[in-house]
Amino acid sequence: MTAVLDRRAAANTEAARRMCAAAPVLVDVQPAGAVVPAMTPATILTSGPPLPWAGYVGGQRHAIMSAAVYEGLAAGPADADAALTAGRIRLGGTHDHGCVGSVAGVYTASMPVFVVEDANTGRRGYCNLYEGESRYRLNYGRYDADVAAGLDFLRDRLGPVLAEATARLGGVPLTPLIGRALRMGDELHSRNTAATTLFAKAITPALLDMAAEGELAAAQSAFGFLAANDYTFLRLSMAAAKVAADAARNVPFSSVVTAMSISCTEFGIRVSGLGDAWFRGPLPDLDCRLFDGYTEADIEWMGGESHITETTGLGGFAQAAAFALQQYQGGSPAAMVAMNERMYEITVAEHPEYRIPYLGFRGTPVGIDVFRVLATGIQPVIDGGLAGRGGGQIGAGILRAPLPCFDSAATAWTERYG
Amino acid sequence: MTAVLDRRAAANTEAARRMCAAAPVLVDVQPAGAVVPAMTPATILTSGPPLPWAGYVGGQRHAIMSAAVYEGLAAGPADADAALTAGRIRLGGTHDHGCVGSVAGVYTASMPVFVVEDANTGRRGYCNLYEGESRYRLNYGRYDADVAAGLDFLRDRLGPVLAEATARLGGVPLTPLIGRALRMGDELHSRNTAATTLFAKAITPALLDMAAEGELAAAQSAFGFLAANDYTFLRLSMAAAKVAADAARNVPFSSVVTAMSISCTEFGIRVSGLGDAWFRGPLPDLDCRLFDGYTEADIEWMGGESHITETTGLGGFAQAAAFALQQYQGGSPAAMVAMNERMYEITVAEHPEYRIPYLGFRGTPVGIDVFRVLATGIQPVIDGGLAGRGGGQIGAGILRAPLPCFDSAATAWTERYG
Repeated sequence: MTAVLDRRAAANTEAARRMCAAAPVLVDVQPAGAVVPAMTPATILTSGPPLPWAGYVGGQRHAIMSAAVYEGLAAGPADADAALTAGRIRLGGTHDHGCVGSVAGVYTASMPVFVVEDANTGRRGYCNLYEGESRYRLNYGRYDADVAAGLDFLRDRLGPVLAEATARLGGVPLTPLIGRALRMGDELHSRNTAATTLFAKAITPALLDMAAEGELAAAQSAFGFLAANDYTFLRLSMAAAKVAADAARNVPFSSVVTAMSISCTEFGIRVSGLGDAWFRGPLPDLDCRLFDGYTEADIEWMGGESHITETTGLGGFAQAAAFALQQYQGGSPAAMVAMNERMYEITVAEHPEYRIPYLGFRGTPVGIDVFRVLATGIQPVIDGGLAGRGGGQIGAGILRAPLPCFDSAATAWTERYG
Repeated sequence: MTAVLDRRAAANTEAARRMCAAAPVLVDVQPAGAVVPAMTPATILTSGPPLPWAGYVGGQRHAIMSAAVYEGLAAGPADADAALTAGRIRLGGTHDHGCVGSVAGVYTASMPVFVVEDANTGRRGYCNLYEGESRYRLNYGRYDADVAAGLDFLRDRLGPVLAEATARLGGVPLTPLIGRALRMGDELHSRNTAATTLFAKAITPALLDMAAEGELAAAQSAFGFLAANDYTFLRLSMAAAKVAADAARNVPFSSVVTAMSISCTEFGIRVSGLGDAWFRGPLPDLDCRLFDGYTEADIEWMGGESHITETTGLGGFAQAAAFALQQYQGGSPAAMVAMNERMYEITVAEHPEYRIPYLGFRGTPVGIDVFRVLATGIQPVIDGGLAGRGGGQIGAGILRAPLPCFDSAATAWTERYG
């Protein structure tokens, strides 16, 4: 028994080491269909441990059907439903394609994605682009002419400019931006203000060159989007976290969590030593702060995987870096510090590059251990946005990962490793 | 007696109200000789309650003579000494010309200055430009060919580009940038990382236009300086604080401090109800963190007025916004919070625009009351850089304003108002 526990401890150390050693670099911005593995013109990806099409309900179902319409794969929702039912539109889980989804997280082939590469391993991760500050967005289950126009802007204007700027710069290393943003009040999940500003600063020399070469309108338009949309960097943070988390996959004996994912009906985790199995449980517990006029009865779960950031030591695991978040998601600075500190009890390492000034530059807690979660009863905390019935964002809050999926994972670990 | 105290309290409230109501806007960048009141081609300004030329010693004396040489007013230090002694070079105090000095704070006529205007009153304040991240700078008492080349860059390259960008934008309001930077880990004295980045972001649309109109090299060079020199915004923060502090001058009965200033030998304060008199005392007390290899014996006082920021509710009075500063100037987050909180005991108001996330978005303490300082014995805390013998920056730390100048001011107040 001790030998097994020693092997588990060593494996967890190794999994966390790999996670922290990842060196994510933005290398390109391309349509998902051109770069995402196994993405076909008729593929739609969505957040969450995959379900059969009939299992998707509410806003997430609506988002998937709307994505089909946006992509020209269906004439309308009913047609999309039929095509998805018949399998003419292939529905996939984001994580199985190297992607991570924000809320419903729908990807179609024409949507631009950030291509982030781990400079150490060459592994790639992808995330599609932030739609902007409107409460009404496709990833929040809303679709209309304005939403479609916003997606067109990402595809036709922002994506190509960011691709060209990235190419001119030979890539943009993300770890330094993330590390610095933690010293500037971000936790890289629900607050990305500094990181977005630092990213805009990083690409500005390329934009200036483009402006001088006849691309002024494109450069102004891309810069204007970044300047107005402080959440933009979240998608880079997510893609960076995805390659870091994937680097920790498949370490035998490791009980470190490598993915946490939400669909409209379930919460699920993957564990390093347990391959690609999803351990599923009920939806998260929640403390929330809703926009004016909404109540908890208005909340609807539509999926979400932006907590790949928490999986790698950011978001709720770095919230003592981001006291300004109390305005957005509630809570007091003291509560944020206490929550952040408790995360050290369920993790196996401290991140060498991600450090929290308020905690004396202590590295963020990283590498959630299924067995520590169960031994302490401490649920991983997740900063997150909240969707409302009928679509749109209606607030934000602290989600707590439910314990049953950790129970299932522990059982599977014990069955495999004894 | 009660009537007098009531009048003082009302006057202090009014002084702080005026200080907080200031709306500083960067409106231009011009050579000091073109815009600073009563600045002649042969004028040199320096930090501190003014002294006769013979009173300036060490690095500050060296900086003044070097400024004369840089400006072409003297062939060398001995020549400068003679010209200053004879009055052919006119030496003035920065504060008497609407300026504030960083460390030795030397201004000559050709040096570019930020022109900051209070949108409410039209009052203007000025500050010259940050020389860059080298430890060896004229304002730290160092002068050589590299320092001169740096000053040339500010005059010939950076200043004109910032002037043009500012004009294209119709001015850059500074209060929103400062307020936002406080939510991003700055306190706007010893940490300006976010504010400098936000300022660069604010002027980038103008730089893109300039790049498109044939000024690419100039735009890249100015942007490159801002991107590489996180301290740049300090001079805007100082000029903004100067117009705010000046707005609070000359309120009869007020015992609110409107300036704190250091020369090579003295600390001095001005008080709202007591006109332009300087109340002088010994140099500050100090807790410091020195760069490797230096000891406290290496510290030399060369002047300084960047604590105009503390005078208006920033810097040491906002350090609970800037926990990353512990790396630069020492101290723990708990000590920073405690110091910040003590400042509320010696001030008369809380700033409506400058708010500290960690303190639940409480407004920063603003309006230092001479009598509260004396009643509590709490010295105003000042974040500051430290100069070394022979010139150059050798560290940073917390300065504490000495009590004797508050004693003198209180005596003068009582003599005047009873």
